[in-house]
Amino acid sequence: MATTRLIEYAEANAAVRAVYDDIRATRNTDFINNFWKALALNPAQLERTWADAKAVMAPGAIDALTKEFIYIAVSAANKCEYCLHSHTAAARAKGMNEAQHAELLAVIGMAHATNGLVTTMQVPVDDVFKVS
Amino acid sequence: MATTRLIEYAEANAAVRAVYDDIRATRNTDFINNFWKALALNPAQLERTWADAKAVMAPGAIDALTKEFIYIAVSAANKCEYCLHSHTAAARAKGMNEAQHAELLAVIGMAHATNGLVTTMQVPVDDVFKVS
Amino acid sequence: MATTRLIEYAEANAAVRAVYDDIRATRNTDFINNFWKALALNPAQLERTWADAKAVMAPGAIDALTKEFIYIAVSAANKCEYCLHSHTAAARAKGMNEAQHAELLAVIGMAHATNGLVTTMQVPVDDVFKVS
Amino acid sequence: MATTRLIEYAEANAAVRAVYDDIRATRNTDFINNFWKALALNPAQLERTWADAKAVMAPGAIDALTKEFIYIAVSAANKCEYCLHSHTAAARAKGMNEAQHAELLAVIGMAHATNGLVTTMQVPVDDVFKVS
Amino acid sequence: MATTRLIEYAEANAAVRAVYDDIRATRNTDFINNFWKALALNPAQLERTWADAKAVMAPGAIDALTKEFIYIAVSAANKCEYCLHSHTAAARAKGMNEAQHAELLAVIGMAHATNGLVTTMQVPVDDVFKVS
Amino acid sequence: MATTRLIEYAEANAAVRAVYDDIRATRNTDFINNFWKALALNPAQLERTWADAKAVMAPGAIDALTKEFIYIAVSAANKCEYCLHSHTAAARAKGMNEAQHAELLAVIGMAHATNGLVTTMQVPVDDVFKVS
Repeated sequence: MATTRLIEYAEANAAVRAVYDDIRATRNTDFINNFWKALALNPAQLERTWADAKAVMAPGAIDALTKEFIYIAVSAANKCEYCLHSHTAAARAKGMNEAQHAELLAVIGMAHATNGLVTTMQVPVDDVFKVS
Repeated sequence: MATTRLIEYAEANAAVRAVYDDIRATRNTDFINNFWKALALNPAQLERTWADAKAVMAPGAIDALTKEFIYIAVSAANKCEYCLHSHTAAARAKGMNEAQHAELLAVIGMAHATNGLVTTMQVPVDDVFKVS
Repeated sequence: MATTRLIEYAEANAAVRAVYDDIRATRNTDFINNFWKALALNPAQLERTWADAKAVMAPGAIDALTKEFIYIAVSAANKCEYCLHSHTAAARAKGMNEAQHAELLAVIGMAHATNGLVTTMQVPVDDVFKVS
Repeated sequence: MATTRLIEYAEANAAVRAVYDDIRATRNTDFINNFWKALALNPAQLERTWADAKAVMAPGAIDALTKEFIYIAVSAANKCEYCLHSHTAAARAKGMNEAQHAELLAVIGMAHATNGLVTTMQVPVDDVFKVS
Repeated sequence: MATTRLIEYAEANAAVRAVYDDIRATRNTDFINNFWKALALNPAQLERTWADAKAVMAPGAIDALTKEFIYIAVSAANKCEYCLHSHTAAARAKGMNEAQHAELLAVIGMAHATNGLVTTMQVPVDDVFKVS
Repeated sequence: MATTRLIEYAEANAAVRAVYDDIRATRNTDFINNFWKALALNPAQLERTWADAKAVMAPGAIDALTKEFIYIAVSAANKCEYCLHSHTAAARAKGMNEAQHAELLAVIGMAHATNGLVTTMQVPVDDVFKVS
């Protein structure tokens, strides 16, 4: 259950419908996932967030699958259940295979372990790592 | 300043020196960064962590630079200052250019924003995302 | 399901019942929510926490609804599902309307985005922000 | 020290200068704080983030000072040193007095305590809090 | 539901079965909990993690129950639902009584409160706490 | 630098001085660490927090050193620099030796690794762990 209502197409205003229409056209599907239905509480934020997502997640200097790996990694450390499910599904849709998934998990686990150790020990940053 | 001592090669015992030697040989440098010097408080953990790091961060189904992006993403969400400095330096050493860095930041920022929104709204996971 | 038992009024000892009675009188309702029933495992902590909550959340230099916004913001960043549900309900009970809820979400999303970016880039604090 | 370069006006391209100019005009000051100088690594993201910040932090259904309280609360739970300094300064500039600061801290502390307790005990959400 | 499949003994390969067999022998039970079944997606990581867990959680300079308290404390602050359930069960199995559980919760709550306050106020570290 | 002023004994009001006096008497030292000087911005919260700290951290069903281990574990996962320094110093003062420190770090590192993995995989809680 959400702390907000999920707004379906039928009850949405014109601004929200325009975003839903663009999500459907861009993704070539009728399906609108719950994140956008919840965000529609604030139509201006829905528009901004969808515009950002289209711009940021498109392939560029970094390819689209790698961007999903980065998204999953942030969502893991931020403990976002919904985001982990939706972006693991997106990574699979963009071609992630089992071997890549296994290595992704290994790096995420390793990073959590060393993050925890470094923080507990408050290790000082080596001068050589500093950007001049 | 750290909450533990940093153990230099000269004062290290044989088990610690063996790891330091392998770090130097693997990386083809004399430099040992502070993380390992701090971890040397527990020689068994130093050995395990270095062995894991070598295995996990090596190129495999995911290439070495992408693994650094994943590491940075976890470290960002975990707020690990040392890890962000050391792995941003590692990503540069492995070829990250400015355009990639800019897109990495954009994805990390986007993921934090949507993680925060999804969590606040407690959006329920769509059935279609669930692994059967 | 909880990792502790929920202690109902009927089985509670005198110290716990005294707190439950005060919660009921203060809120003018018979309802005791699960947080207090779980906390009753430690009667002394139940007393302290309820006393603190009454003192801290009462209107003062900051009004009661704004205090709920602050509570929700902390709970969002701390990923506390129960707290988000209970304090979003409390904010509604104290008069939060949909326009305020939408702006609350926008600020929380914005703050998460810039927190993530600032941390990844390890931006140094400007001198002008420092308290002399 | 940052993990990225800080880009000064003199070396900025036209897109970045346009944002810097708007920041200066909007805030009626020549000062550009480090966050924007770091974000300028990615001019498109700089533009989006500044546009979002102007829209989101402007007074609306929630006043500008309350929005700073919400920002500080998120930044506290997200452990963002820079954000805490810059937004505490912003809150003071928008009129936060010592009594309000003291109560803000009290609510943030209280929320952290109960977030931690609720999470450890995994308290189930009461039905009454659920949005139908 | 998980974002990965849970791998049962019947479908596991020889490497995974060897770990499952060792878990069963070490714990003197046929039960394999879901964490290991999920981790079996990556047999090498399953092996490493189980070997680490056996080494790290065994009684040594710190007894086994105290190690569970530490584990629960980390899992609470990291908001790990599964970990809180599994390690609270483990602590009970190792002898944690209700009085200890109540005090564990009190310390975890106290630490969250002061962590939140210290971070919000960005309190500088006293010289006397620094390791020379 | 803090986001608040540190209030010294000489400028403190009577309520704050009473707490400072009790800290000095309880700890048998003239030293007041910065946390209390920052918290003195809100005398009522200073009183409550000190009273709670005395009650919660005193030896009971769990001994005083183990309570410091729990505090350090929470502070590590919450990334609280000040808390890590002050409570590592407190643990040493209460008798923590190097072997215990090394094992404490190993458990904290292990917990972070498995917390990260469990969360990424969204492992469902086994029925056997649930409190009936």
